[in-house]
Amino acid sequence: MDNRRMLEELPRQEALRLLASVTMGRVVFTQRTLPAIPPVPHILDEGDVIIRTSLTTPIVGTTEQSDPVVAYEADEIDADTRTGWSVVVTGVAQPVRDPLDRARYEALLDCGADDPADCVLRIRPEIATGLRVTPYPEN
Amino acid sequence: MDNRRMLEELPRQEALRLLASVTMGRVVFTQRTLPAIPPVPHILDEGDVIIRTSLTTPIVGTTEQSDPVVAYEADEIDADTRTGWSVVVTGVAQPVRDPLDRARYEALLDCGADDPADCVLRIRPEIATGLRVTPYPEN
Repeated sequence: MDNRRMLEELPRQEALRLLASVTMGRVVFTQRTLPAIPPVPHILDEGDVIIRTSLTTPIVGTTEQSDPVVAYEADEIDADTRTGWSVVVTGVAQPVRDPLDRARYEALLDCGADDPADCVLRIRPEIATGLRVTPYPEN
Repeated sequence: MDNRRMLEELPRQEALRLLASVTMGRVVFTQRTLPAIPPVPHILDEGDVIIRTSLTTPIVGTTEQSDPVVAYEADEIDADTRTGWSVVVTGVAQPVRDPLDRARYEALLDCGADDPADCVLRIRPEIATGLRVTPYPEN
């Protein structure tokens, strides 16, 4: 069996399209000098990635903190064939403060967990990259 | 429907046990000042996490580079119920140079892709943390 695979870098629009096709990813940030990579739900709204972080301590805790740059990753990789795609978006994360927007996002991003740290964040994708891994073409 | 969920922090041994129960995760490091989070295959061997990074440019490229600290994440989250677990291991990543070890790991960590950047790395889990998300108990 030929296990070789081909790698293809994806353009921004294709990376964002794939990200919009799934409902969960992982937000990467630093928490007390250690890397935190919690899985969270997301949606895309007008080109921004909206996430809800009730499953973690907050990324953006108080208005005194400056808006941090975070990375957001999602992938769909078949564990057997190891083919699929992965996408990383990097950008500033800002809390969604508008009450109407926030209520709409909360309804879409069910988090359930009874956690006072609940926070809806908007990530503006300054950079969006992706990689697709496909089977090597047969001769 | 009660969508609430409970969060439980996992002890180190349970985090490593869950990590060993799956075959892929994501290694987090910095590449040209940007976060890289590629999915890669892993195994656990005598408490270390062994990964193979043929799908990316190398984390540890040359012997001149000092051994970087990386984070490694794996999870199993049900997209519908949003219950499951996630684990993060943090530690120094070092290339596996012993030819016998390397051959053994390469056989176990099928990467397939025809990529000259192929590299087998050992991560010593200085820190291993995990989170389990379970349904809220019914009254």
